[in-house]
Amino acid sequence: MQILSDPRQVQAAMLDRRARGQVVGFVPTMGFLHRGHASLMDLARPRCDHLVVSIYVNPLQFGPGEDLDRYPRDPEGDAALCRAHGVDLLFMPPDLYEAGHATTVHVAGLTEGLCGRSRPTHFDGVTTVVARLFGLVQPALAVFGEKDWQQLAVVRRMVRDLALPVEILGGPLVRDEDGVALSSRNAYLSPDERARARSLVGALRGMQAAVAGGERDVDALRAQALAHLEADRVDYLEVVDPDSLAPLQRVDGPARALVAAFVGRTRLIDNLALLPG
Amino acid sequence: MQILSDPRQVQAAMLDRRARGQVVGFVPTMGFLHRGHASLMDLARPRCDHLVVSIYVNPLQFGPGEDLDRYPRDPEGDAALCRAHGVDLLFMPPDLYEAGHATTVHVAGLTEGLCGRSRPTHFDGVTTVVARLFGLVQPALAVFGEKDWQQLAVVRRMVRDLALPVEILGGPLVRDEDGVALSSRNAYLSPDERARARSLVGALRGMQAAVAGGERDVDALRAQALAHLEADRVDYLEVVDPDSLAPLQRVDGPARALVAAFVGRTRLIDNLALLPG
Repeated sequence: MQILSDPRQVQAAMLDRRARGQVVGFVPTMGFLHRGHASLMDLARPRCDHLVVSIYVNPLQFGPGEDLDRYPRDPEGDAALCRAHGVDLLFMPPDLYEAGHATTVHVAGLTEGLCGRSRPTHFDGVTTVVARLFGLVQPALAVFGEKDWQQLAVVRRMVRDLALPVEILGGPLVRDEDGVALSSRNAYLSPDERARARSLVGALRGMQAAVAGGERDVDALRAQALAHLEADRVDYLEVVDPDSLAPLQRVDGPARALVAAFVGRTRLIDNLALLPG
Repeated sequence: MQILSDPRQVQAAMLDRRARGQVVGFVPTMGFLHRGHASLMDLARPRCDHLVVSIYVNPLQFGPGEDLDRYPRDPEGDAALCRAHGVDLLFMPPDLYEAGHATTVHVAGLTEGLCGRSRPTHFDGVTTVVARLFGLVQPALAVFGEKDWQQLAVVRRMVRDLALPVEILGGPLVRDEDGVALSSRNAYLSPDERARARSLVGALRGMQAAVAGGERDVDALRAQALAHLEADRVDYLEVVDPDSLAPLQRVDGPARALVAAFVGRTRLIDNLALLPG
């Protein structure tokens, strides 16, 4: 496995591979890798000739007061995990942007609800860094986790609208044995918080069971789930169309429940299909 | 010469060429082609394996009340000119964007002065369409005219910031025998307006001569040039740093004079180096 830090060196090497007809697969990450990231690499590996993972904690997607400065890091563990999952190139730039960076990619609509409401600059940071990473890495396919369901929808829309020649694959969410969705931010949780973090997936599974039992009214589903949540503050708990992310009043077709909540100081997100899409 | 209208058909063909190591050259236009456009094709032709010209009157870069509906068109003449200049593929999409297009590429700073002041959404339209066209056409090099000096600077910045693997070439401005910069919009001018349009280049050449004669003060240069202009309304007349587009007070190094003015209902732009960069 090669490890590179210079963006332009990565781009030159990847352009050369493309010009020789190779398929570059790409998993962009912020590091502190876990089994969830590994599953994305495993999804890409058989579909490409050259597998690239990037690790970059992107300042543009953090708001004021968020956890940019304390975001967990483990470069040696990350490299070992990448090696074990057949990664060819690990791209770890200390800085990613050009001096005087002035360009923003914005997706309207999809970015306005859910996480976009409490993190108003977050998705512009995501789409801008993904566009730049795609420019550097030149992937023919890229994998994003379904854990950030809204991010996946936003990236798909950007790729479609800008005609970026990249196939976007969503990787299923991976959970720990206690049901908690894997997240680098779980490292922040105290034992008590970890126990309460289980209530997110519990609330979502409760909604799923209620729908299976015939409940169709979203207000009723939400009320039941909110009563179950042991969070310190609920950012949102919504039932939306899986593609458009439009809020639903009734569950009559494909629907996804999404939750964001603070447990202690840690903001966690999770989501689950209510009726499969 | 092949003529295609389907964006995805163009993209599939160009991705195939890239995967075979070919260099695609690209000249994006809004049609009604003249010798200025031809000079851009001539610049690209020896530098690429496959030369693509696009013709698309991009609604996103027109503001309310501008000339989108009456922008001149001549598809047959355009095709003949492209054929005569060695174009391989003429891309003429009736529509370019996806249904529900929601993505905007914005360059801060460079877009705020000059044309950006009176056309506040213009450059977002330019960068968005150029990003999408680059996604479809997959060029390794693209040529833009220096006639829209600000547009060239904005596109260069976007390409740098998003690490788009496209070399941007600026093609020198081409003038008619009377000195007027070639523009598709010159077709709007009455004989009287055409005579007065000559005052734009006259004003710029007057500034250039004054600088050659030792004048360094931008206020003095502007006053002299404004007195010379026979326009109905001057949008701006500025002396700026050629790269950053920052307004200059004195001409002590590379400097570019830029003018935008209405002659009748027609908005014309022109620019000239005062001290070569």
